[in-house]
Amino acid sequence: MSSEPLLDQFIEALRCLPGVGPKSAQRMALHLLERDREGGQHLASVLEAAMERIGRCGRCRNLTEQETCAICSNAQRDPGQLCVVESPSDVIAIENATGFRGLYFVLMGRLSPLDGIGPDQLAERLNTEPPAEMIIATNPTVEGEATAFYLQRMAAKHGVAVSRIAHGVPLGGELEFTDQSTIAHAFSSRRAVEP
Amino acid sequence: MSSEPLLDQFIEALRCLPGVGPKSAQRMALHLLERDREGGQHLASVLEAAMERIGRCGRCRNLTEQETCAICSNAQRDPGQLCVVESPSDVIAIENATGFRGLYFVLMGRLSPLDGIGPDQLAERLNTEPPAEMIIATNPTVEGEATAFYLQRMAAKHGVAVSRIAHGVPLGGELEFTDQSTIAHAFSSRRAVEP
Repeated sequence: MSSEPLLDQFIEALRCLPGVGPKSAQRMALHLLERDREGGQHLASVLEAAMERIGRCGRCRNLTEQETCAICSNAQRDPGQLCVVESPSDVIAIENATGFRGLYFVLMGRLSPLDGIGPDQLAERLNTEPPAEMIIATNPTVEGEATAFYLQRMAAKHGVAVSRIAHGVPLGGELEFTDQSTIAHAFSSRRAVEP
Repeated sequence: MSSEPLLDQFIEALRCLPGVGPKSAQRMALHLLERDREGGQHLASVLEAAMERIGRCGRCRNLTEQETCAICSNAQRDPGQLCVVESPSDVIAIENATGFRGLYFVLMGRLSPLDGIGPDQLAERLNTEPPAEMIIATNPTVEGEATAFYLQRMAAKHGVAVSRIAHGVPLGGELEFTDQSTIAHAFSSRRAVEP
């Protein structure tokens, strides 16, 4: 370590956290030093372990410290449903919000077939253990849409049924404050209602 | 460590940081894991060192990993001026904003003479090495004012000259949006201007 005072090094190091500027870093450092040394020590040891031991699940590519993540190795979950998402945070969001009991595949960013970044591992999976249904849950952005389109074709090639999660006006949202493309999409994706 | 997935433990541990809720903690954890392992490892080692080694300066009570902090042990600084502040963040603020070249005394919270928490160490300092001027820079809150009053009497007892930093309308502030007590204070503390 350099000869700079340790407190300054500490404040500086905290800035690797997203959304933490000089002021917040200072507040965090002083808070831990003055009021929560125990929490700070615990964080230091968990942080070190996490950086060292967390890698990718061999089956779904989600973040885990084990060979196979807790979801993939859970025999209670249904391998017949495979939900494809862009990132680990999407898995957390779906796990928290839904009762989904199938498995996941995490793309880790969108596909870039043009850059040669193809979903080889996903293709292999569809080949060796094809699910009954592949649920595409990429984000409704330009890249996410392109990825979804690519995934649809891939699934068709392997004879796997595909579905996509619905996009439209969010619950609790108001039409007045919803952007035009969302409204246009929601309008064209309208569904018949049973009388 | 428990059998909970390490990622969950990591997200939970980050919540010891002030102002970090479940969502930010998750964002921080995934950011470090996916994009900045090196920064995370560096933070882990600095955090561990800081929690273990940073204590109080023997002279001014500011946070430091040494016996005597960098300011107190700097021979270039003037021991004739002693600035009394409430907390380490006040020292950082004054160092960043002013050209003050004297020394500090950090109360670490306000005094609570009623609770028996007296400034023994400060009294001893005024006794053994009385400064020419003691600058009181406690916060203009009720407790800070009470502390300032107590410090004034203590300095008088030791025959030390006392000054207080000015309080009033902040620079760049507008009278219209300044609270009433600040305006009242600024008004009654008005100073004669040389013609």
